[in-house]
Amino acid sequence: MIKTDILIIGAGPTGLFAVFEAGLLKLKCHLIDALPQPGGQCAEIYPKKPIYDIPAYPEVLAGDLVNNLMKQIEAFEPGFTLGERAETIEKQDDGSFIVTTNKGTKHQAPVVAIAGGLGSFEPRKPQLGNIGDFEDKGVEYIIRDPELYRDMKVAIAGGGDSALDWAIFLADVAKEVSLIHRRNEFRGALDSVEKVEQLTKLGKIRLITPAEVTGLKGKDSLESIEIKKADETFDLQVDHFIPLFGLSPKLGPIANWGLEIEKNAIKVNNALDYQTNIPGIYAIGDVNTYPGKLKLILCGFHEATLMCQSAYQRIFPDKKYILKYTTVSGVDGFDGSRKEAEKAVVKSIS
Amino acid sequence: MIKTDILIIGAGPTGLFAVFEAGLLKLKCHLIDALPQPGGQCAEIYPKKPIYDIPAYPEVLAGDLVNNLMKQIEAFEPGFTLGERAETIEKQDDGSFIVTTNKGTKHQAPVVAIAGGLGSFEPRKPQLGNIGDFEDKGVEYIIRDPELYRDMKVAIAGGGDSALDWAIFLADVAKEVSLIHRRNEFRGALDSVEKVEQLTKLGKIRLITPAEVTGLKGKDSLESIEIKKADETFDLQVDHFIPLFGLSPKLGPIANWGLEIEKNAIKVNNALDYQTNIPGIYAIGDVNTYPGKLKLILCGFHEATLMCQSAYQRIFPDKKYILKYTTVSGVDGFDGSRKEAEKAVVKSIS
Repeated sequence: MIKTDILIIGAGPTGLFAVFEAGLLKLKCHLIDALPQPGGQCAEIYPKKPIYDIPAYPEVLAGDLVNNLMKQIEAFEPGFTLGERAETIEKQDDGSFIVTTNKGTKHQAPVVAIAGGLGSFEPRKPQLGNIGDFEDKGVEYIIRDPELYRDMKVAIAGGGDSALDWAIFLADVAKEVSLIHRRNEFRGALDSVEKVEQLTKLGKIRLITPAEVTGLKGKDSLESIEIKKADETFDLQVDHFIPLFGLSPKLGPIANWGLEIEKNAIKVNNALDYQTNIPGIYAIGDVNTYPGKLKLILCGFHEATLMCQSAYQRIFPDKKYILKYTTVSGVDGFDGSRKEAEKAVVKSIS
Repeated sequence: MIKTDILIIGAGPTGLFAVFEAGLLKLKCHLIDALPQPGGQCAEIYPKKPIYDIPAYPEVLAGDLVNNLMKQIEAFEPGFTLGERAETIEKQDDGSFIVTTNKGTKHQAPVVAIAGGLGSFEPRKPQLGNIGDFEDKGVEYIIRDPELYRDMKVAIAGGGDSALDWAIFLADVAKEVSLIHRRNEFRGALDSVEKVEQLTKLGKIRLITPAEVTGLKGKDSLESIEIKKADETFDLQVDHFIPLFGLSPKLGPIANWGLEIEKNAIKVNNALDYQTNIPGIYAIGDVNTYPGKLKLILCGFHEATLMCQSAYQRIFPDKKYILKYTTVSGVDGFDGSRKEAEKAVVKSIS
């Protein structure tokens, strides 16, 4: 059982910044995210895209935003359960909650903050009847560890940036890389499209277009895929099939936690502390809704901050918290580090 | 008459960021501030101090925060009325407001956003009966233009960073610099204290401590100051006397605008849009109050953003605004500039 003060579901920018504000209050955080790394969409979907509306950043790449947040919270030593989806929540007699993931990992905390963004990003799966039989037995929707594909025969399906970028990357790792797309046209960064073209000419990527994967074959694990190209249908021997058709956000199991939901988002009390209808469960960032809600990262930062203050009151009902400014009081990390402004001296001049 | 869409009172971080969010909605802003430069406290009081709780900035100097915000809003060409204090507000028949400063400058806008921080920073004045007679006639509380003191005889009073830093700076500009402080001990950056000590030894600063200025003399303008040091009282001939006893925030004339005030702050509707009890007048940042309010810069950014959305609805009641992400839609400056993420291409691979 992982125990913490604030259990944060979702490790996007809002969830990450909550760790910092909680840390200033000496509260520890643990984050759960279905994606294999922190940063949410910013890290998974558009790390190289610039964002222009983060305050005091005329321009910042989404990936850099995440890196800066990770650096900011480092001293508060957050825990992470990554690549797992929060599945169930149970309220305990002592008022705390136990949240269990799809892989059975259990977490306990007096406060749960849902910072789930648009939901957990589920891969769009191809319509192939027996695909479930081969999941993690040759079929993967997200590449977690490229080394899995070393010296293997790999087929990637898709026509966007992910398919292009991974085909390029794996061309140097795998024994064979086939790229299958239902059109001749690819949609992505010009660089990537040109690089795939070049690798195709060099024979390092086998391009199969316009074509579709229509079947999966194998005994215990995937052995070959059936491909339909024009009127022809043929089998291609592969160890791995990786359909990269994008990720689609789903609120998922959280929708069944008894929270008030409106338009696929969780209703919160924005007049006070972004708490949901269940005391002790908060929702912050893009996952929540209230009158006038804007799904902007900077709004999530504010909501996370007010949530932490309320969480503090819930955890320590008898203590009165007095806001201290970081410029005046400095920041004391849980790792023993201390950041502080240079102090003024009082010195006599003779 | 200066006309704009949103008239922002206070050019601190919150007011500055409001210009950006308004700009995304194609609304123009004009800012009024009593201080001689934008940035509020961050620029005037602690530009060289680090702030640790700006999201995604593990550490940023207050002055750099302001510079980055100025850069971010540059393309939206905000107007500034600086060194003037918003004094009166009058509602017009068309629903717009006219705000007049203490120097008589008039501004008209359909929306007024008060981003006044802790209030306008008024200098703490020494208790000298006739000091009012010499204001701007030899007595200044804020140094706006150091050139005013070239080859002049200047006396500075005070024992903090401002007094130290300006004594050092003016030692190279003025004919004579006297530094008067009621104690022998100064309170400031070690650097500055040591530099003053050094300049005193070189005879470039005349240090008069422990001492107090007890009188001001002159006909049309200041001619000399009376100084009491221990049991001795003497006159010192000066062209300028600059008491730098710090700035103290005062809500000031805004307190008489008919706004609901609570604990020296303006009450707003935080459940919606940070509007005050007077429709069309909003209050954002440290100047406002609501249940759970935290006086943090990052909260001001959020409040500014929601205020702009509401202002848009007020100005264009018939238009429906659809939020666009800057990463997707880019940013179009009023100066014709355009920032945008690199677009994906659609390209066939042959």
